[in-house]
Amino acid sequence: MTSTPLPDVQALTFDVFGTVVDWRSTVIREVTATLGQGKGLDADWGAFADRWRFEGYVGGIQAIRRGERPFTTADALHRAKLDELLGELGNPLDEAEAADLNRVWHRLDPWPDSVGGLRRLGTRFIVSTLSNGNLALLVNMAKHSGLPWDCFLSADLLGHFKSDPETYLSAARALTLDPAQVMMVAAHKPDLEAAGACGLRTAFVPRPREHGPSVTVDLEPDDRFDFNATDFHDLAAQLRC
Amino acid sequence: MTSTPLPDVQALTFDVFGTVVDWRSTVIREVTATLGQGKGLDADWGAFADRWRFEGYVGGIQAIRRGERPFTTADALHRAKLDELLGELGNPLDEAEAADLNRVWHRLDPWPDSVGGLRRLGTRFIVSTLSNGNLALLVNMAKHSGLPWDCFLSADLLGHFKSDPETYLSAARALTLDPAQVMMVAAHKPDLEAAGACGLRTAFVPRPREHGPSVTVDLEPDDRFDFNATDFHDLAAQLRC
Repeated sequence: MTSTPLPDVQALTFDVFGTVVDWRSTVIREVTATLGQGKGLDADWGAFADRWRFEGYVGGIQAIRRGERPFTTADALHRAKLDELLGELGNPLDEAEAADLNRVWHRLDPWPDSVGGLRRLGTRFIVSTLSNGNLALLVNMAKHSGLPWDCFLSADLLGHFKSDPETYLSAARALTLDPAQVMMVAAHKPDLEAAGACGLRTAFVPRPREHGPSVTVDLEPDDRFDFNATDFHDLAAQLRC
Repeated sequence: MTSTPLPDVQALTFDVFGTVVDWRSTVIREVTATLGQGKGLDADWGAFADRWRFEGYVGGIQAIRRGERPFTTADALHRAKLDELLGELGNPLDEAEAADLNRVWHRLDPWPDSVGGLRRLGTRFIVSTLSNGNLALLVNMAKHSGLPWDCFLSADLLGHFKSDPETYLSAARALTLDPAQVMMVAAHKPDLEAAGACGLRTAFVPRPREHGPSVTVDLEPDDRFDFNATDFHDLAAQLRC
């Protein structure tokens, strides 16, 4: 086995939504099936997915981090926003149907390279989630999609959401590693900037198909990060897995 | 797929040391190799293993639960006791050797049915650790031995050691399940008694080869528990996996 470019790194921690799984395509497909085909409704399902994600989940986490809302799980944030969005459509789902649709976030499709790339990276490193999703969501998603995680670290287990510094530092502590022995892998530069500020190593894997046309994201390689890779196989090759 | 006898149960949480892995044989083999063959020492290595386990780990956890010692990890408890035991032998190991020997608890051999039985149980249930071991130890052990866990719950993540009730209740909460939707699987009746008192379901899988001749354990089936099984395959059959 050849040595890696960063021999101290022992664990890779991954952002999940957007970096490992394609939330937007999966959510659009399921809401189209459930609400469009199933209930005969017509709406912009891409906009529905974006509002669910950005107003419900991302906005909810920001409110919690600002202290404006009590700590809760991703499941609960998703459900509260789903109920609001369904209300705008005239409440077309019963409780069981709404609960099932809310669990779409537990069964998101991986990017094509995710399962194989994680398996390759796992031959050399501990591969763990480090997600604002809750544990049950991440475990169900892994079981559904065959994601070969070695470990699950999540906001609800750690008591902090990214990109609070405590999240990255307590993740390293839970792994009994120094921050410099952990590398954060994400498609989103702010996540990597925050991890890097805590002393973690960083790998940027842009996902140009994550977003719809209304969102612009910086996808350019960036020499502030230790690695820039086109997908998980490219990262594995750079890390000599 | 036929229905299970307990249709509400969605996750099985396992005691690890003794229930899933054969700590005593592995520790005896490694200390014999490192200290006996490696350093030419002669001692009762079975007694060494038992003191490391019962005085260091079990005794350490009891002291923490009684508030006599600050919360720490299984790794730290193991290391403190190892240093004491090595001191009695004249400190035969350097720091790197002692650190490596302490990690024997990260590479314990599974019982012959553990990997296959967990895989079978995992087709129907979330299979998770619920161990007083720390996360890093459990993750390394799984990677070393191919234990197909879906999830890791551990004392350091939950902030409590078994058999404090908070351990079982916060495990169910982390899985977003009611206690009655979780079944504790263990070779030790006190663990199951404590889990049952918190509303979890219980399965007893005695491991008659866990202990040496100096320890007597109650291995009899017990109708206070929901299931009594001879090994994980028998449990899988009873649960119709």
